[in-house]
Amino acid sequence: MLEKYDYLGIINDRLNNILRLENGNAGLIEPIRYSVLGGGKRIRPLLSIASGRINAADFDAVLDIGCALELIHCYSLVHDDLPAMDNDDLRRGLATCHKKYDEATAILVGDALQSLAFEVLSAPTLNLPQESKLKIINLVSKASGISGMVGGQLIDLYSTGQELTLTILQNMHAQKTGALIRAAILSGYLCGSAFSLDKYNTLSQIADSLGLLFQIMDDILDVTQSSHTLGKTANKDIINDKATYVSLLGLEEARGIADELYREIITDLSRLKNSAMLQEIATIVYKRNH
Amino acid sequence: MLEKYDYLGIINDRLNNILRLENGNAGLIEPIRYSVLGGGKRIRPLLSIASGRINAADFDAVLDIGCALELIHCYSLVHDDLPAMDNDDLRRGLATCHKKYDEATAILVGDALQSLAFEVLSAPTLNLPQESKLKIINLVSKASGISGMVGGQLIDLYSTGQELTLTILQNMHAQKTGALIRAAILSGYLCGSAFSLDKYNTLSQIADSLGLLFQIMDDILDVTQSSHTLGKTANKDIINDKATYVSLLGLEEARGIADELYREIITDLSRLKNSAMLQEIATIVYKRNH
Repeated sequence: MLEKYDYLGIINDRLNNILRLENGNAGLIEPIRYSVLGGGKRIRPLLSIASGRINAADFDAVLDIGCALELIHCYSLVHDDLPAMDNDDLRRGLATCHKKYDEATAILVGDALQSLAFEVLSAPTLNLPQESKLKIINLVSKASGISGMVGGQLIDLYSTGQELTLTILQNMHAQKTGALIRAAILSGYLCGSAFSLDKYNTLSQIADSLGLLFQIMDDILDVTQSSHTLGKTANKDIINDKATYVSLLGLEEARGIADELYREIITDLSRLKNSAMLQEIATIVYKRNH
Repeated sequence: MLEKYDYLGIINDRLNNILRLENGNAGLIEPIRYSVLGGGKRIRPLLSIASGRINAADFDAVLDIGCALELIHCYSLVHDDLPAMDNDDLRRGLATCHKKYDEATAILVGDALQSLAFEVLSAPTLNLPQESKLKIINLVSKASGISGMVGGQLIDLYSTGQELTLTILQNMHAQKTGALIRAAILSGYLCGSAFSLDKYNTLSQIADSLGLLFQIMDDILDVTQSSHTLGKTANKDIINDKATYVSLLGLEEARGIADELYREIITDLSRLKNSAMLQEIATIVYKRNH
């Protein structure tokens, strides 16, 4: 998969470069590098790059936008793993940031990563029109905050152990993971020079479906794969008594919805030119085992 | 003081408006409002407004920039108060966010406030040229992150109980509080239409001195005022065994440096037209008792 679009090395190189040791306080850069460069599927940068292809975006620009989104994603993982939140010891097969260092460091690592993302998005060297940069910054800040990722995380925390309706579950995930996936796809598109509201809206809808597919697959993998394969604690949702698509619908119905979403996404994408890479990513999300 | 420039009500109204209840997840907005609207001197927005006057800046724009900086300041207070950090129960005379709610909420409140600051700075309705917006976003993100506020906080945490040189102490505060004060002053100036590199550099230097004065006065107040007057725990630095200007230099020498910094700031400002409000703020910083 994706061998035709082997961007993982390029993304990791760029992240490595953004997080150069000489770029500030060594005591902070080291745990930041540990938290960002220790692996990860880099789905968000891949999505930005793939979506950028649909709009002939400048590659360096779209790479930086994707990396900024990855920094936000990584900060959210570091904070989510904290004892006061999900209290997790294992992430990507390694000790979580607060386990490797300490809680205070993990809080500050997350905080600094969020600032850094906006520093990357507003950099004078980023090769994008000012209008596009500002649109992307506004999109990413909204996707990250109260009505996006952080808002979803709060719903998640306070719904643990409670019975959820499918609507609330869907709304929670649309915010918690969906918003940033949507921002990755839409900001990739915004890196191109053309703008069609029609294409933008189509991509927005595809992004919502892909975010949902991503989450349903996560829930399915949680109960069907081992901790070793996942690189994080398996059966975590059951242990934490969290409502998931699997706990609400059962494994078979969850799989059925995933099948349908995947077909829908591929059908919608096939109507957009140069969407082959985005189709491959959707396939990976659908067929992944971790 | 500042009665001629009574902006406190206007700043609080604007913050109140930015944090409207209908703007997202109620479970998150309420603790955010508690953490932001429960008081505070609003030094950063006042600085942006005052500095904007030097460059005939649009008032609504400079107000929003100042409020965005206040959101970042408030997020840093919420995170700094956490048990894993300074472990404080009292802030502005009220229970700290994690005491009033819980730790997870306090972490998310801080995270969401940072996103919201960048949402305000990148808002299409913000009446500034795109170039100015991007310059300000880049300035604020740098001032907040690894080499700014968060970097300084890490140095602070890991220097507790250790002997510090005056240089390290100064460097720590230049990052921890100085960077955001500098960003407030410089971004206020950037809201005006004219740009003189000379004035910008002068303001940058004044901002550094004012940040330092602010910190030295904080250290002096910590040992000379009651918890009641401060609205936060007094003698906190001694209790936490933290190096301060007072612990390193003694009260008298710390006062002497503050006197000299204040004189310098007023002399430098008196050379800039329309700097009366900035001079008044410097006087408040110098003469405040909490």
